[in-house]
Amino acid sequence: MDFELRILGSSSATPSANRHHTAQVLTIGNQLHLIDCGEGTQMQLMQYKIKHQRICNIYISHLHGDHYFGLAGLLSTMHLQGRQLPLHLFGPPGLSEILSLQFRYSGTNLSFKLIFHELDTACYKKIFEDKLITVHTIPMEHRVPTCGFIFREKPKPRPLIKEKLPPYLTPPQLVRLKWGEDIKDEQGNLILANKDVTLDPKHSRSYAYCSDSRYKPDLLPYLQNVDLLYHEATFLSDMEERANQTFHSTARQAAEMAAAAQVRHLLLGHFSVRYKDLTPLLTEAQEIFPKADLATEGSIFSVVDQHR
Amino acid sequence: MDFELRILGSSSATPSANRHHTAQVLTIGNQLHLIDCGEGTQMQLMQYKIKHQRICNIYISHLHGDHYFGLAGLLSTMHLQGRQLPLHLFGPPGLSEILSLQFRYSGTNLSFKLIFHELDTACYKKIFEDKLITVHTIPMEHRVPTCGFIFREKPKPRPLIKEKLPPYLTPPQLVRLKWGEDIKDEQGNLILANKDVTLDPKHSRSYAYCSDSRYKPDLLPYLQNVDLLYHEATFLSDMEERANQTFHSTARQAAEMAAAAQVRHLLLGHFSVRYKDLTPLLTEAQEIFPKADLATEGSIFSVVDQHR
Repeated sequence: MDFELRILGSSSATPSANRHHTAQVLTIGNQLHLIDCGEGTQMQLMQYKIKHQRICNIYISHLHGDHYFGLAGLLSTMHLQGRQLPLHLFGPPGLSEILSLQFRYSGTNLSFKLIFHELDTACYKKIFEDKLITVHTIPMEHRVPTCGFIFREKPKPRPLIKEKLPPYLTPPQLVRLKWGEDIKDEQGNLILANKDVTLDPKHSRSYAYCSDSRYKPDLLPYLQNVDLLYHEATFLSDMEERANQTFHSTARQAAEMAAAAQVRHLLLGHFSVRYKDLTPLLTEAQEIFPKADLATEGSIFSVVDQHR
Repeated sequence: MDFELRILGSSSATPSANRHHTAQVLTIGNQLHLIDCGEGTQMQLMQYKIKHQRICNIYISHLHGDHYFGLAGLLSTMHLQGRQLPLHLFGPPGLSEILSLQFRYSGTNLSFKLIFHELDTACYKKIFEDKLITVHTIPMEHRVPTCGFIFREKPKPRPLIKEKLPPYLTPPQLVRLKWGEDIKDEQGNLILANKDVTLDPKHSRSYAYCSDSRYKPDLLPYLQNVDLLYHEATFLSDMEERANQTFHSTARQAAEMAAAAQVRHLLLGHFSVRYKDLTPLLTEAQEIFPKADLATEGSIFSVVDQHR
């Protein structure tokens, strides 16, 4: 099953000729999760041939324009193209009010059901769950209410070792084995130890999106061992004071978070327009956390479905 | 002096891979007038190396997203780049409310003065005047309150024929001659006929922007003899019924307006995404009005400063 992140925009507050505002598409199985939706997101989706009709959920981290000014346009296009499928929208207080006002003045009555989930950006909380995944908010520290998101695959069944299975097992017993239980008799005596007839389950993958935030080590408990961590890196560390003043982070701080949380792979993004060449940001991060990459437009990061 | 129109977007409701939402820049002298501001306008301005800090006025024709969803982003970028120059924004009721709400939630306190002029889209009315030009609204017929805009250079002074000027003329008399007056004595007797010592003034150029509208021949009195007419042409005439239902026009109807108003040059735009090749739209218009062009992304149309 796919677990793949596509970057649509890497720029902070103002865009530049080749850098777009923040938006990312996380594909899990055949479902697309859109994370933030800066101006021009619908054009970037076209650019990378991603069908917006496949998006099931949209998550908006905060109400700075570079993270959501493309949302009303994308929803309008979905509507004009006759979308029927309901869409779940997760965002901070105010987002629903803004969209409602825009749609009222444009006389738009959406062709699909838009289900708005207002977020409490100040807490860690499960906001979505289906058969495959859970999504939690994580509180960021920014100038307006802001949260990040953690996407986690649910635990997977343990593969059965067919040649070791006794023939007397019933279908319900097989299901219990897959989910880690031992088989016991009515008195509670062990008949069959799970570990003897099953393999460890495949790794449950995870992605943490740390949107705009000041360096915030108290996020570490949430980020422990995630496979893929996106952390904003607006500045180089020689501008740490400015980062702190504007509630942003440096590339070094992003790497320190990655190292302390023992993640597998760090992605840097949300670059200040002052950096024409992004190499110094990457170099600064890699000195602390070597498995780091730049989350630039069009790049794809997959997490492989394997045993860890 | 420049009188030049640059097209930033030609697409109707939904954008396509190469077509952007509506926005145009009219340069008159050294002032830039931005007409409509669809999503991605700030990126298109960068694409064509147009400095947004030079924009003095922005005109929004109506509150369908494809005509204004780029506005909040553009204003934010002006703010983030420290604009000081006041900006005049002309738009329908509701626009100011929408922007205020967005800026409230983003905690934005603009670095420059944004002077909002609420338009009565139902009437022909002068909304702007400076030394060089006037701008009037023209009422469109669309699904929400919508107007077009006519930009007209003011009458220009009559060049003096120096070798024919008597030496006794005072500076105030010379000024009166430039503006078409005869020179008379205190009793009102003609001393010097204006036509004997001046040439006809240069032509005062004009541009009419007919935004989204159903075919509306009662606009003709406003459009008579304009140099450059932009008229929406969302559909080919085989879809005239659909054009009428959706309050849009066909290429043929745009050409009929141009012919009846005896304009000099017709520009077609706001093309439905169904037309991959725009040639049939141009051909249809040119059968009725030969001096027609497609207002596609990046194209420039200049009106020369000459005697007509």
